[in-house]
Amino acid sequence: MLWRASNTHRNRETAMPTNRRFLLKRRPHGEPVPEDFELASEAIPEAPAGGLVVRNHFASLDPAQRGWMDDAPSYMPPIALGDPVRATTVGRVHASDNPDFAVGDWVMGLNALEDYSQVMPGGFTSPIDVSLTDSPSKFLSAMGAVGLTGYFGLLEVAKPQPGEVLLVSGAAGAVGSVVGQIGKIAGCRTIGIAGGPEKCRRLIDDYGYDVAIDYKGKDVATLAAEIRAAAPEGVNIIFENVGGDVMDAELLNLAKHARIVLCGLISEYNAPEKVGVRNLWQVLTQQATIHGYLIMDYAPRFAEAGKVMAQWMQDGRLRIDEDLQEGLENAFPAFMRLFSGANTGKLVLKIA
Amino acid sequence: MLWRASNTHRNRETAMPTNRRFLLKRRPHGEPVPEDFELASEAIPEAPAGGLVVRNHFASLDPAQRGWMDDAPSYMPPIALGDPVRATTVGRVHASDNPDFAVGDWVMGLNALEDYSQVMPGGFTSPIDVSLTDSPSKFLSAMGAVGLTGYFGLLEVAKPQPGEVLLVSGAAGAVGSVVGQIGKIAGCRTIGIAGGPEKCRRLIDDYGYDVAIDYKGKDVATLAAEIRAAAPEGVNIIFENVGGDVMDAELLNLAKHARIVLCGLISEYNAPEKVGVRNLWQVLTQQATIHGYLIMDYAPRFAEAGKVMAQWMQDGRLRIDEDLQEGLENAFPAFMRLFSGANTGKLVLKIA
Repeated sequence: MLWRASNTHRNRETAMPTNRRFLLKRRPHGEPVPEDFELASEAIPEAPAGGLVVRNHFASLDPAQRGWMDDAPSYMPPIALGDPVRATTVGRVHASDNPDFAVGDWVMGLNALEDYSQVMPGGFTSPIDVSLTDSPSKFLSAMGAVGLTGYFGLLEVAKPQPGEVLLVSGAAGAVGSVVGQIGKIAGCRTIGIAGGPEKCRRLIDDYGYDVAIDYKGKDVATLAAEIRAAAPEGVNIIFENVGGDVMDAELLNLAKHARIVLCGLISEYNAPEKVGVRNLWQVLTQQATIHGYLIMDYAPRFAEAGKVMAQWMQDGRLRIDEDLQEGLENAFPAFMRLFSGANTGKLVLKIA
Repeated sequence: MLWRASNTHRNRETAMPTNRRFLLKRRPHGEPVPEDFELASEAIPEAPAGGLVVRNHFASLDPAQRGWMDDAPSYMPPIALGDPVRATTVGRVHASDNPDFAVGDWVMGLNALEDYSQVMPGGFTSPIDVSLTDSPSKFLSAMGAVGLTGYFGLLEVAKPQPGEVLLVSGAAGAVGSVVGQIGKIAGCRTIGIAGGPEKCRRLIDDYGYDVAIDYKGKDVATLAAEIRAAAPEGVNIIFENVGGDVMDAELLNLAKHARIVLCGLISEYNAPEKVGVRNLWQVLTQQATIHGYLIMDYAPRFAEAGKVMAQWMQDGRLRIDEDLQEGLENAFPAFMRLFSGANTGKLVLKIA
């Protein structure tokens, strides 16, 4: 990672507040390395006509950002080289040329890993009521895209019925921990797959899973046998965050007409060659369905679902853990926690 | 393949009519070889209490039979070693202990590759009206599981809308040729993928495809580019019969919310290690759905759909080609035509 020395130097001289921006400098090949990025320091922008400048306080770090760094067909354009890494942020209005937003208002929106974001009219930015929660960061976890990804993915895509078996991979992660808990609220028997004994302990103790399975060091056949032992009649719903060997083992345990919510494939985001799944054949024989799932279609219902999530948190039925990392200067190591298996709970970068 | 010499010898001596049966002797490893089977000759069975003996005239040869030869979880139990290879057949009642069936009646059912099948009460056997078509074999093609697999898979699972782009792999095959034609009836733009110039010619001339793509000798990137040229906006429906590289190329061309009917994966039925798909990621980003599809759930509607298919054939809107092979003694080479790419149209073995 390189700092723009000239800017840094100038800013030291003038002591002007600056806008630090975490730029994508080149497209990562496989696992990102520090040299793929650059922390630049620029002048704070002015509000565009009809728009805003937002002072970012918290930014969401998500596996999806890795996909946006590739120049590949996706649901969003790739991040342009030289642009800051796109991120959902929560912050306060710093400057406004829009009558709907006053300076100081809390907002969330699709911005970037930077101190200040210029927000054009007509974007995704919306006001948030921070009084609903103990921290504005909750709008990036429970009540943000990640928590609501679990909410809509399970309740609206999989449509769980009481008594069904729900299998979640990446079960201790930001989405997985929410899915398991909502699965219990919906009356399912829940099986979580995670890496290592500590995460498996959390599945049981913190997120109420009925069964925890540690995938580490196990081949597909061994993992498949452990799932079978936990669900001899097969699983009705798979909430997939991982892919690869884990998903192959899961697919060997489908109940007839199983529904698979394909929410993420984190095991292969950094793989130069995609792995996919080998046991697709089981989807056919069990007449299962794989639903490629992104939360965007549910955006009009975020406020409604956020209130339900806030209520569940107040009632003690939903526990949300955040992995709060601090400082834009730590953006790279913080982001890499997603792939090392280091983080538990929703990864958030505190910017200010 | 071994013949039971003693039986053959005895039968020559006595000139008794016998029941030749194409037995599974051992489970194929990868591509079947003649030694996996045995053509035995046994006495013609008697009707069981409440059941029938059917003289098989035509038997359906289908990729699914290869799956039944494996000892693997599937939607049906594996064929037991020493049992004849399970097959859907059309034939006439030879002996009856059931008041609903008279000797001479035409019936179809799930029997086996053998001259005579003992049919137990309560099975899948049902009477057929051979006057609807020019040959009873049509009940194994257009009006049988294969033709109706195309019918229900396209119309009920994919639910095509006029103007949508339909992409079919194995497009010159028994199912694919039906799917393409029904796609045109439903108002779709149809793109067929098949192997070799002759099959591609048939896609256009015989089955009315708008575009034919030859997959032979092309890698995933090349094939994907050809699909993109034919469907720049992406494909709305994929009717998948092939899997592997072909499916990977297709997945790079999904329109948003595409529906994939996963009907077959013939490219890997003989593969000792499953391949699956590598570009599963695209299913997520395009919010596509993969429907594992077997026709069984639609069995109660076969008669209704068969009449529609018969009418389309009479009206000249639906062309059904049969690849008719003759003789139980040719069961092995006939079956292998499914995998060599030799057959076009529905493969049927004429037994009598």
